[in-house]
Amino acid sequence: MSRLIPAVIVVVVVILAATIFLAASPVPTPEFPQYTGGHQLLRPADYREWIFLSSGLGMSYSAQAGHEMFTNVFVPQWAYQEFLKSGKWPDKTMFVVEDRGSTSKGSINKAGHYQTDWMGIGVEVKDESHFPEKWAYFNFDEDTKSASANPKAGCWTCHDQHAAVEHVFVQFYPTLKPVAKKFGTYKGAAEEVQ
Amino acid sequence: MSRLIPAVIVVVVVILAATIFLAASPVPTPEFPQYTGGHQLLRPADYREWIFLSSGLGMSYSAQAGHEMFTNVFVPQWAYQEFLKSGKWPDKTMFVVEDRGSTSKGSINKAGHYQTDWMGIGVEVKDESHFPEKWAYFNFDEDTKSASANPKAGCWTCHDQHAAVEHVFVQFYPTLKPVAKKFGTYKGAAEEVQ
Repeated sequence: MSRLIPAVIVVVVVILAATIFLAASPVPTPEFPQYTGGHQLLRPADYREWIFLSSGLGMSYSAQAGHEMFTNVFVPQWAYQEFLKSGKWPDKTMFVVEDRGSTSKGSINKAGHYQTDWMGIGVEVKDESHFPEKWAYFNFDEDTKSASANPKAGCWTCHDQHAAVEHVFVQFYPTLKPVAKKFGTYKGAAEEVQ
Repeated sequence: MSRLIPAVIVVVVVILAATIFLAASPVPTPEFPQYTGGHQLLRPADYREWIFLSSGLGMSYSAQAGHEMFTNVFVPQWAYQEFLKSGKWPDKTMFVVEDRGSTSKGSINKAGHYQTDWMGIGVEVKDESHFPEKWAYFNFDEDTKSASANPKAGCWTCHDQHAAVEHVFVQFYPTLKPVAKKFGTYKGAAEEVQ
């Protein structure tokens, strides 16, 4: 019997260590905001492997449409799972909106639009320890490795006034709307046409 | 010293068990095709957590566009990773094309189109042990829990003739095109307008 005691202790320690390892390592580092020189956001890598929220074509705040681009929106797996459980966005959540060209005729396609070249990304970050106003907005083109946050008037104010859940335009993400409504975090007034 | 021997054995057994568990369980079951009654495909669950390939709006084989829907295409993480390494689709790969309604004016949006309600899904499966012609095609609406494969003339023939990589329209997935080209699996002729 006495021989079993150290064995039991070792098993407990191994299970604890494995639990800590599994709990600590499921989220790859690129799924959190990374900075250089203080508050310069590094361009997120591998966002195409994140969760897709929705896409639009030629969406615009003004009635005059310009060159129509597709916009694809992605959020990291870990933040998406947190949102499903709470209807809230956890600190360190990033969103990427990817701009892509659109074309109509090619191969067997004869009508409508499909996506073509990468045109740039916008990134929205919730990071309370980095930004006194919690949310910050960045843009990256092909040559941008890191970027400073845009001025508050650029994106922050509009997201603050018109987004349905915190600073996020959940009114345009049909799979997330019922989640936010269930948890009471959805501002229905944001759906009204301005 | 003799007390340590059982402890060491237990540790080894625990580590082996943990390794087997981790090695055996990385791919969730819903990411493989599941059947009922022989070859009736069960509707894939959680495909919105798969890898997003691209989306289109109102894409059509005929020049006469009807009601414009968005189409979002998803593939399981494990199959996507295999494709990145080989430019080929592994056996048991599934693709989901999700149809969603589109609207233009709502909230702050004044031009262009964004996605709304779920309208149904189409599923493409590569499963050599289930289908003598390797690939099969299914449709699901809100009430469909399982579905039989569509007749060969419905989808199979067109995919066989016009898809750029095996039966898959990689010509419409801009992030996958360069991968297939690198591995020499891309049929460039599929890009020509028919």
